[in-house]
Amino acid sequence: MTDRFQLPTMVEGLGRLRATVLASVSKTRRQHLELVVPSLDAAIRELGLRDGAVLSFHHHLRNGDAVLIAVIEAAARAGLRDLHVAASSIFPVHAALVRHIESGVVGGLCTNFLSGPVAEAVSRGALKRPVILRTHGGRARAIESGELCIDAAFVAAPAADPLGNISAVEGPRACGVLGYAQCDALHARKVVAVTDTLVDYPAPRIEISQEHVDLVALVPSLGDSAGIVSGSTRPSEKPADLEMARMAAQVIGASGLLQNGFALQNGAGGTSLATAAAVGRAMAERGVTGSFASGGITGFHVDMLEAGLFRGILDVQCFDLRAIESLRRDARHQPMSASMYANPHQRGAVVDRLDAVVLGATEVDLDFNVNVTTRADGAIMGGSGGHADTAAGAKLAIVTTRLTAAGYPKLVERVGTVTTPGSTIDVIVTEAGIAVNPGREDIRDRLRAAGMQPVEIGDLYRRAQTMSERLPAHPSSERIVAVSEYRDGTISDVIRSL
Amino acid sequence: MTDRFQLPTMVEGLGRLRATVLASVSKTRRQHLELVVPSLDAAIRELGLRDGAVLSFHHHLRNGDAVLIAVIEAAARAGLRDLHVAASSIFPVHAALVRHIESGVVGGLCTNFLSGPVAEAVSRGALKRPVILRTHGGRARAIESGELCIDAAFVAAPAADPLGNISAVEGPRACGVLGYAQCDALHARKVVAVTDTLVDYPAPRIEISQEHVDLVALVPSLGDSAGIVSGSTRPSEKPADLEMARMAAQVIGASGLLQNGFALQNGAGGTSLATAAAVGRAMAERGVTGSFASGGITGFHVDMLEAGLFRGILDVQCFDLRAIESLRRDARHQPMSASMYANPHQRGAVVDRLDAVVLGATEVDLDFNVNVTTRADGAIMGGSGGHADTAAGAKLAIVTTRLTAAGYPKLVERVGTVTTPGSTIDVIVTEAGIAVNPGREDIRDRLRAAGMQPVEIGDLYRRAQTMSERLPAHPSSERIVAVSEYRDGTISDVIRSL
Repeated sequence: MTDRFQLPTMVEGLGRLRATVLASVSKTRRQHLELVVPSLDAAIRELGLRDGAVLSFHHHLRNGDAVLIAVIEAAARAGLRDLHVAASSIFPVHAALVRHIESGVVGGLCTNFLSGPVAEAVSRGALKRPVILRTHGGRARAIESGELCIDAAFVAAPAADPLGNISAVEGPRACGVLGYAQCDALHARKVVAVTDTLVDYPAPRIEISQEHVDLVALVPSLGDSAGIVSGSTRPSEKPADLEMARMAAQVIGASGLLQNGFALQNGAGGTSLATAAAVGRAMAERGVTGSFASGGITGFHVDMLEAGLFRGILDVQCFDLRAIESLRRDARHQPMSASMYANPHQRGAVVDRLDAVVLGATEVDLDFNVNVTTRADGAIMGGSGGHADTAAGAKLAIVTTRLTAAGYPKLVERVGTVTTPGSTIDVIVTEAGIAVNPGREDIRDRLRAAGMQPVEIGDLYRRAQTMSERLPAHPSSERIVAVSEYRDGTISDVIRSL
Repeated sequence: MTDRFQLPTMVEGLGRLRATVLASVSKTRRQHLELVVPSLDAAIRELGLRDGAVLSFHHHLRNGDAVLIAVIEAAARAGLRDLHVAASSIFPVHAALVRHIESGVVGGLCTNFLSGPVAEAVSRGALKRPVILRTHGGRARAIESGELCIDAAFVAAPAADPLGNISAVEGPRACGVLGYAQCDALHARKVVAVTDTLVDYPAPRIEISQEHVDLVALVPSLGDSAGIVSGSTRPSEKPADLEMARMAAQVIGASGLLQNGFALQNGAGGTSLATAAAVGRAMAERGVTGSFASGGITGFHVDMLEAGLFRGILDVQCFDLRAIESLRRDARHQPMSASMYANPHQRGAVVDRLDAVVLGATEVDLDFNVNVTTRADGAIMGGSGGHADTAAGAKLAIVTTRLTAAGYPKLVERVGTVTTPGSTIDVIVTEAGIAVNPGREDIRDRLRAAGMQPVEIGDLYRRAQTMSERLPAHPSSERIVAVSEYRDGTISDVIRSL
């Protein structure tokens, strides 16, 4: 076969063109394209990473995740140094990261939530560069804007096929949704599907598809199922929590928001779930059909969906087996990416459609600022996750908190760390009463009209002081070990070494 | 509320930081974000488009599409000139585009398929700049690489919610899948969901999600349902077609590829469907379970899935109602983007996993080159679509064609336009026999071993010449009106004005 076709090299209106050399065009020969590598060591070799590379991880396997540590160990074996770990959350299961920080394999860290031994090490000053603590929406913004450039994203894949189609509702370590990994997969220079379950092509129920995946790395296990999902998640049954939940639900009921189309998010903590339960009862009584429940999803949300209290669920992360089962079975239960969920630079984020969000707090101060990042002793033990995102988006952001914990006051003059600015928090509910942000007179008036008697936050503060046995300690070291980045990329606070 | 928190502006290891001004942080106030505009005129105003802008469109509504013309008419009313239409296909329904080309509102066009009055106008030289005819995979490549920069993508949305979540399996103009619009939505500067069915938030079964959508423009109707989907698509029942189908299926059966995991694509033409039917019978007889069927999907593929002949369907476009219903109901039937389907610059495209593809042809030449772009008189009447992509990807690319049509030979010395290079076509099946590409001796040997008697392509050519009443006319004008771009961005041929 020869090329008998003479084509012009210049075409008016298009300029110079490169002609197809017909005789040399061939089958793509990518039929035998091998994306599967037998180990993370092989993946690290293939990627050609250099010292200082940014590696990203998601936290849908939560405290059962074995992938992050396995990748860092493979990188250490490959002799890499000064890596930057861009995780969506760090849990106690990631304790071995401390060793790699100390040895210099890991030199930087950013995450939306930081707990366990790694948090302690960071608080002690183990890392040279300060950790950036982002919000879930802020992380998506940072990745999409190019502020956080990921060299290689490692996606823990409950099931993957040989071309890298990833399913999260199949396999022994099914986690349901991969919302936090979506941005990484779309924007990282290289994407590795890490899996213990290689399935025939094409994978069923593809959540991240092959055009975004460069390698499929096999590992013996993604982690410990027991740490990945709870069997079930239940509302608190403690009387004080139930009383706060009752009050929070009463606030929502009085707010004027509890109408058809109502949208709710609540955390997976016992009091938040109990609040959702109480709100659900109010919805049923009033005959209200909500539009959606969002965020991390539990079987409890599934019950509300199935009871017809909501038309849909928007799920960024499944918290239990029942949520995964619902996602698999019920089309009204839809996955979403972190960007869709909370990115403040997108046109429409889901958090902006929330009517009410029920949040927790480690500390709340007189300006309604909330700390969910550091303990009373100043040590890091958390981070925003979606806290600051949902507070900013929801029409009504309610924080439920006891006045004290472990002898420390939770109502303080000034929070140890500003995670969520007080101007986005509308109501504080405690066992001793409800305080409304002075900026929300409309809510205060509605609560009064409903027969409730909100108090001043100063009253709650003074009461908490009286009940406390000790005072929070704010580290005064010059050394800054972390910054709390607000969702828009500004810094809401700095965290100093212990 | 004042900002009582003094933050450092420089942090060692991070540099200069911009502090959150706590007192000025507020609710995002995007609760009332209004993405919905009442008309395309309003959308055009909002977009702030300029003369020369690139507007993109997809063709899932096929010959029922009213969106492309409505957008161009709104742009014309806004006084815009010299627009570039980047469509995935142009059909007879888009006839009014000719008027806008003649008036100078539209100055450029690229598409993967070009038929009807617009094709005739282009062939006559109505456009100043040559049209770029791409493949489905090549268009995805051009968009993702930045070669084709889209200013505004108009996504015909069978249903959309007020924040732009798009569903394609709901609404009176449901088209099932939006595979060709996915790249546009991800990469265009602005994305407009054009809908006649605004649904409550959140939309069910979201296919393109809100974080990618800037505006939701309401229109009275997306188009004519009758032109959008057929009620059903059926294999040919003509004896000559059935004979070719039988032979093509015999080739596949003899190829050694018909084993568990077999992957097949076929066009929606009667002979292609009849071939798939015959292959299906062979699979059932041999007890073979295929991996997937891909491409544009018909109820016929759904039957094969439900009969257990394939484990899955990868669907870039639904051709009939039964396909849409299956997509809605059966998780094994999955949508895919054009990039996943056929982008040659992605790591793993679906076409690269095909065992066999059964294609049609307007002309085939002695080098096995195929023309599906121009008629025997040289006028444009089609384009590659996925033809060149699947031929390049599949282990076995079979073209079925009669020797003549309307008195013209279809087996020719040299095709009028090279759409698909002959080096990627393996077997030609005609009513007068089978020719195997000389580059595929392995296939020729297998066919012979199975008792088949392939002939030389020259024999088929001479036979076709004998049977023909007239000869193809190749325009010899200097004026180039279109180029046929191969999937990798090189030019496989030029098309001259009539």
